[in-house]
Amino acid sequence: MAELPEQNSAKPDRTIISVDAMGGDLGPAAVVAGIAKAAEKNPDIGFILHGPKDKLSSLVAKRRLTDRCEIRDAPDVVSMKDKPSQVMRNGQSTSMWSAIEAVRLGDAEVCVSCGNTGALMLLSMMRLRKLPGVNRPAIACLWPSRNKGGFNVMLDVGADIRADSHDLVQYALMGMSYARNGLGLARPRVGLLNLGTEEHKGRPELKEAADLIADIAPTADFDYVGFVEGGDIPSDRVDVIVTDGFTGNVALKTGEGTAALIREFLKEAFEATPLSRIAALLALTSLRRLTKRIDPRRVNGGVFLGLNGTVVKSHGSADATGVSAAIKLAFKLAESGFADRLAARVASIPSPGQDAPQTEAESRHSQ
Amino acid sequence: MAELPEQNSAKPDRTIISVDAMGGDLGPAAVVAGIAKAAEKNPDIGFILHGPKDKLSSLVAKRRLTDRCEIRDAPDVVSMKDKPSQVMRNGQSTSMWSAIEAVRLGDAEVCVSCGNTGALMLLSMMRLRKLPGVNRPAIACLWPSRNKGGFNVMLDVGADIRADSHDLVQYALMGMSYARNGLGLARPRVGLLNLGTEEHKGRPELKEAADLIADIAPTADFDYVGFVEGGDIPSDRVDVIVTDGFTGNVALKTGEGTAALIREFLKEAFEATPLSRIAALLALTSLRRLTKRIDPRRVNGGVFLGLNGTVVKSHGSADATGVSAAIKLAFKLAESGFADRLAARVASIPSPGQDAPQTEAESRHSQ
Repeated sequence: MAELPEQNSAKPDRTIISVDAMGGDLGPAAVVAGIAKAAEKNPDIGFILHGPKDKLSSLVAKRRLTDRCEIRDAPDVVSMKDKPSQVMRNGQSTSMWSAIEAVRLGDAEVCVSCGNTGALMLLSMMRLRKLPGVNRPAIACLWPSRNKGGFNVMLDVGADIRADSHDLVQYALMGMSYARNGLGLARPRVGLLNLGTEEHKGRPELKEAADLIADIAPTADFDYVGFVEGGDIPSDRVDVIVTDGFTGNVALKTGEGTAALIREFLKEAFEATPLSRIAALLALTSLRRLTKRIDPRRVNGGVFLGLNGTVVKSHGSADATGVSAAIKLAFKLAESGFADRLAARVASIPSPGQDAPQTEAESRHSQ
Repeated sequence: MAELPEQNSAKPDRTIISVDAMGGDLGPAAVVAGIAKAAEKNPDIGFILHGPKDKLSSLVAKRRLTDRCEIRDAPDVVSMKDKPSQVMRNGQSTSMWSAIEAVRLGDAEVCVSCGNTGALMLLSMMRLRKLPGVNRPAIACLWPSRNKGGFNVMLDVGADIRADSHDLVQYALMGMSYARNGLGLARPRVGLLNLGTEEHKGRPELKEAADLIADIAPTADFDYVGFVEGGDIPSDRVDVIVTDGFTGNVALKTGEGTAALIREFLKEAFEATPLSRIAALLALTSLRRLTKRIDPRRVNGGVFLGLNGTVVKSHGSADATGVSAAIKLAFKLAESGFADRLAARVASIPSPGQDAPQTEAESRHSQ
């Protein structure tokens, strides 16, 4: 990323995060509340906030964030129902466009938005452009797991509905780089999501990708653990789970839905009888720790990988805690110089397209 | 299904379930223990058990099941690593083959196996044959949900790795029939799994299937609720979730893995401090109810739909509780005359292939 220009109104020794205040389900008040949380926890973050100036100014003043926040006026909002292609054509005055633009111009290091995923992805791709050698950018999410650090990385969880073997290889590289820089894993273990670990069938592109990933693993300094199943996603067998965006999106939402269902059942169980209500009081600390471990807001923030610049997509329904978690992630990535490292990683690996059998596919991608 | 022949050694007024004793991870002792559980709970079930006669005889005698169980000698076992095609060619002496054969011959109503899913599916398909009009059979599973009955149905969860729009329509019909007969829902609500409920993109076969399912819903007497997301699988928005076998398998295993992770975290939380251990004692009844609600063994049993006969696939790792649950499901389906009803349902609906735009696809399927 470029260095911060001196004219930036936020203090130049702060790491600047560009935040789209609009487009989330709970509106700009929740976003500003999230900024306040993050700002309180970490004095090194500065913000550029995008949206209707009048509305934002009063929210920012109320939270006493005026000296931490530059506000950039953007009167229009991308709604969840807007078609990405329309936003691309007519969205210049939206807060989402403005938030991405701040990263493109080098005014901020990372962009955070709770808005329409499809529009955010398309805008990010068109404005920030893909990294050289990347065919399909991907969205990576963190997944609570039995691993020491508590998380696995999964990608793609919805940037694109399909991925060929070449794309899956790039996802492996990008996810590995994210795990190394974002989770601090020296030698991430990468697995490819399939129906079974020793399935003889399985989609042809998966078998092809498995061979290609196994080939580059030694050079790229990661371990390829082979095929993994849905049940392995939260396991300690693997750090990075590679899949296409359709499957990844369904898996992500299924996991979240299952966790939410169990949280509800747990709550009902503890409200069932007077005795269980007393038990809940006694176990309060333990239950709080559990709730925190499985709270989806804690891992809020999908990261767009494969672009010239980092964009963090927060849940549409994120509240202050969720927005604050997404900002924390953005800050961590900015601090580690992740964008540059990822670019170097993708560039350093010989493209599988250079091998003879891939040449045709490669030329098709670059059209 | 044919009526029970008089020469059957189990009492003729019992509903006969054919059980493959071999091929599960825990071996025949766990299967026979499951049979004992089911037999005790329900005096109307009789069994035909398949596997090495000597081994099974002593297990059955130990459990005092001799008068409830006919044993059919099958010396060979299908292992989890056997290729389905090899089992198809050389598996005549396996317990799995014998278990399916008992249904084909009309000696038993439903077959239950914990063995290799791919082999069980291929054998079932080749020996029982597909129902007229069905292109790809499917595996349906029950999913804990917020619905009144406590479950949703999802299919396909792994019979086939792909499904075109025509297949998805048949899954909708078969799943709807299963929900009606297995869960007792008069007018099931059917949804199609996609990346989002109002996604503009999405795979082309999904958009096509959505139109076709909406067209037949009034005739087939079910409600089509449109696209659903992964988060809706355990919801009360929908009773039947339709998807291809790759996506469904990943979603199923992801949900199971997430539930297992949370169970572990919950256990750790209650063992964390002396106070939380006391709390766990106080809340024992409530916690047991919770554990039961999310216990995957309770919903053990995927059902193969679209064949001339019903086959229940139990988890490979099923213990006595799991096997007993699969047998209970098999019994319920046998009692309701499900196989005949499903056949009638599939036959009664005009094939989408009869409409002009589908003719080409239809002729491709029937090749």
